Amino acid sequence: MVQGQTPVEGNDGLTTRQRRNRPLVIVHSGAGKGKSTAAFGLALRGWNQGWSIGVFQFVKSAKWRIGEQAALEALDRVHRETGEGGPIEWHKMGSGWSWSRKAGSEDDHAAAAREGWAEIKRRLQQQTHGLYVLDEFTYVLKWGWVDVDDVVRTLNERNGFQHVVITGRDPHPKLLEIADLATEMTKIAHPFDQGQKGQKGIEW
Amino acid sequence: MVQGQTPVEGNDGLTTRQRRNRPLVIVHSGAGKGKSTAAFGLALRGWNQGWSIGVFQFVKSAKWRIGEQAALEALDRVHRETGEGGPIEWHKMGSGWSWSRKAGSEDDHAAAAREGWAEIKRRLQQQTHGLYVLDEFTYVLKWGWVDVDDVVRTLNERNGFQHVVITGRDPHPKLLEIADLATEMTKIAHPFDQGQKGQKGIEW
Repeated sequence: MVQGQTPVEGNDGLTTRQRRNRPLVIVHSGAGKGKSTAAFGLALRGWNQGWSIGVFQFVKSAKWRIGEQAALEALDRVHRETGEGGPIEWHKMGSGWSWSRKAGSEDDHAAAAREGWAEIKRRLQQQTHGLYVLDEFTYVLKWGWVDVDDVVRTLNERNGFQHVVITGRDPHPKLLEIADLATEMTKIAHPFDQGQKGQKGIEW
Repeated sequence: MVQGQTPVEGNDGLTTRQRRNRPLVIVHSGAGKGKSTAAFGLALRGWNQGWSIGVFQFVKSAKWRIGEQAALEALDRVHRETGEGGPIEWHKMGSGWSWSRKAGSEDDHAAAAREGWAEIKRRLQQQTHGLYVLDEFTYVLKWGWVDVDDVVRTLNERNGFQHVVITGRDPHPKLLEIADLATEMTKIAHPFDQGQKGQKGIEW
């Protein structure tokens, strides 16, 4: 070590405390199961920290995730009634975003996705949440509905302490580039291979 | 199709309904993150189905998973107070299993692990839970603390409708063999690589 230099771990010049409290961009991808499930598991940790959590579900089917939605909404009620944990909001595109007054926007998935992203962008600027779950958001980028450069710039320039978790297959390379933590869920064996059907409690 | 043969999907002779309701052995392995987090996400779905859920945490550190534990215990209280969802029990080896009267068993990890497995075996025989989360249980098998053949036999012979999720790195090949669903979590990028420290809300 050069004499007189302050010892730092890593080579980014940050103190341990700064590194410990760095807001992260997290990506869960891969063809295996657990991408969204693990994101909702992270929401449990965030809830316990008292963070405000915003879930934005960019999928069409209303059936999927109803278990997680019911459980996280129950935790939101616990927070409002007892002060334990933090508030959790759950927004889904499928039935039209809850904040939107536009009727029929669910018929145009690209427009609805752009509307969802515009709202997330506003919230990131206002530092609304401590944790954002952008469920199945990779497809929105893959299909060009939302501009990946806008997403990358917005995430890089976000202020405060806001974690963002993005799930879905085939994440855009530019998204992986800015991810602080990226996990790929790979299928080893799967009951669908043997004709197994999706079942309640496991798939939704 | 041979004339007179009842059409079945897959080749196991099960009806769609039977396949839809088959209790599963699920393994989350790999060096990446999300193994346990996804298991606790599954617990949210099970809770919403009203299943009894038993979490058995085979790890030493008390710090990890406190977020999930607090959140799942809050959901258990919601169930007891309102009837919504199902009951959730959280048992951990680190501080001595809650059902155990043995003092100091936490000093002997192998004995404590065997005690945990013996209790899970009893519960599987009594069909206590709809979902068992055996967190970090792969290590218990890897280190030979619990006999893998006993585990395989017990899981194969379990009756009723009991899902079992096992997490941890390096799952025993015999465990993967009987898994209905196995997902490997692989690290793509990780902040620890850049000197990032674990932080609250993300790691626990």
